[in-house]
Amino acid sequence: MTSRFDRDTALVPGDAGIGVDISPAWDIGVRPNGGYLLALVVRAMREAAGFPDPVTVTGHYLRPPTQGAARVEVETVRRGGRHGTASARLIAGGEECLRVLGTFGDLAAADGPSQPLPPAPDVPSPEDCPRLEEVPGWQVIPRFYDQIDARIAEFGSADGTVGRITGWLRFSDGRPPDADSLLLFADGLPPAVLAVTRAGWVPTVELTIHVRARPAAGWLLASFSTRFLVGGYLEEDGELWDSDGRLVALSRQLALVRGGVL
Amino acid sequence: MTSRFDRDTALVPGDAGIGVDISPAWDIGVRPNGGYLLALVVRAMREAAGFPDPVTVTGHYLRPPTQGAARVEVETVRRGGRHGTASARLIAGGEECLRVLGTFGDLAAADGPSQPLPPAPDVPSPEDCPRLEEVPGWQVIPRFYDQIDARIAEFGSADGTVGRITGWLRFSDGRPPDADSLLLFADGLPPAVLAVTRAGWVPTVELTIHVRARPAAGWLLASFSTRFLVGGYLEEDGELWDSDGRLVALSRQLALVRGGVL
Repeated sequence: MTSRFDRDTALVPGDAGIGVDISPAWDIGVRPNGGYLLALVVRAMREAAGFPDPVTVTGHYLRPPTQGAARVEVETVRRGGRHGTASARLIAGGEECLRVLGTFGDLAAADGPSQPLPPAPDVPSPEDCPRLEEVPGWQVIPRFYDQIDARIAEFGSADGTVGRITGWLRFSDGRPPDADSLLLFADGLPPAVLAVTRAGWVPTVELTIHVRARPAAGWLLASFSTRFLVGGYLEEDGELWDSDGRLVALSRQLALVRGGVL
Repeated sequence: MTSRFDRDTALVPGDAGIGVDISPAWDIGVRPNGGYLLALVVRAMREAAGFPDPVTVTGHYLRPPTQGAARVEVETVRRGGRHGTASARLIAGGEECLRVLGTFGDLAAADGPSQPLPPAPDVPSPEDCPRLEEVPGWQVIPRFYDQIDARIAEFGSADGTVGRITGWLRFSDGRPPDADSLLLFADGLPPAVLAVTRAGWVPTVELTIHVRARPAAGWLLASFSTRFLVGGYLEEDGELWDSDGRLVALSRQLALVRGGVL
């Protein structure tokens, strides 16, 4: 049986680009989750890039897309011996909604030096953390969390942050995580800045994700922090760890707080 | 008198794109500094983006450029009410060397909420820190540091990092920093990973910079850290603070350690 994520990121190559279908299943409120859109576009870029793993991808969010049929136009920027770079445009409702620039590589062939990593955050196991919908204060649970099982380990302001949220994530239908789905999971928890503001909307301007390793099967541990909120702009820095305790992705987004009060 | 930075990032609009001149004055070894190239391209993108400040720019480094005459081809991706997005290609020696995607805005008009910031690192004043060339262990000082006055406050491994380097930066010719030059300064200190490896070359794969405020005149304080070195890939996270103690930029790059041993 095909997983919901694979079904909703399926590609149909054609004359006018790669056909995709923007599913409402991954909505946050009335807009598709930014990580879902990025994963969809990055899947369409892989062949043009010529390498399996999206080692660094950046999306600039131009406008919310209409749902349903859309297309991705992909350009190969460069293919080298170690990396391939591609650019892509997501076009929905006749308008470009997302521009992505990505460099792909082969993480299985990465043979350079390593240093012992800082360990993953020390939090209770997923079974001992409440589901997102059980955490007081979340009045409306977006549809996205029908597809994603999220367990919240920490949510608040601490350690020099404006806000931090840490939790466990997995697909509700049991699909194991892979490099592509890290792009989704890197935007998979509510914004950390909601620890200090009642903003209803924290639109992403730009999201960059470094995939550092292919994840093992099982839960992912995700931690997102915002340190600097200035004039309504904020960064949200994320780390994703796999069930073996390895760092598998780093993310950073620039976002805006809209319509909120502190 | 025009500053060296302004002279070496001057633009000559023409039929085949915007003419630029890649100066050897900003070389690190035999290659131009990545931040210099990014600043050069971003200056060429501003008119197409239609807003003054590069709030988030990402460069993917495809190959080292030849020096001398080159051109930048710029595409407007979208102009909205608050932001404008543009894409650009730096072409030197007939080959694309750098692809940049950037969203511009007007930081002077940013009117959203702010939170008290974590303070700048507490380090000795620039006058009490050694110049880069006075720090033991740097055998060869790149030409770049003829243009940039760098004072090193901290260099080593501490606080859960593989490496960290903190220092003061300014233009040697007295030019005050501005939003554009933050793109240069965000790549303005030797790689933090050199605290643990003798790698001669730490090539940047991708560099993303968020400009969060226009800097005040005077010294910039820059701090760069690497936490995760895996299979030869590393991230380097940077913070830039102005002389008023305000955070003015965040940077993150994905880079490789080449030819080094731990």
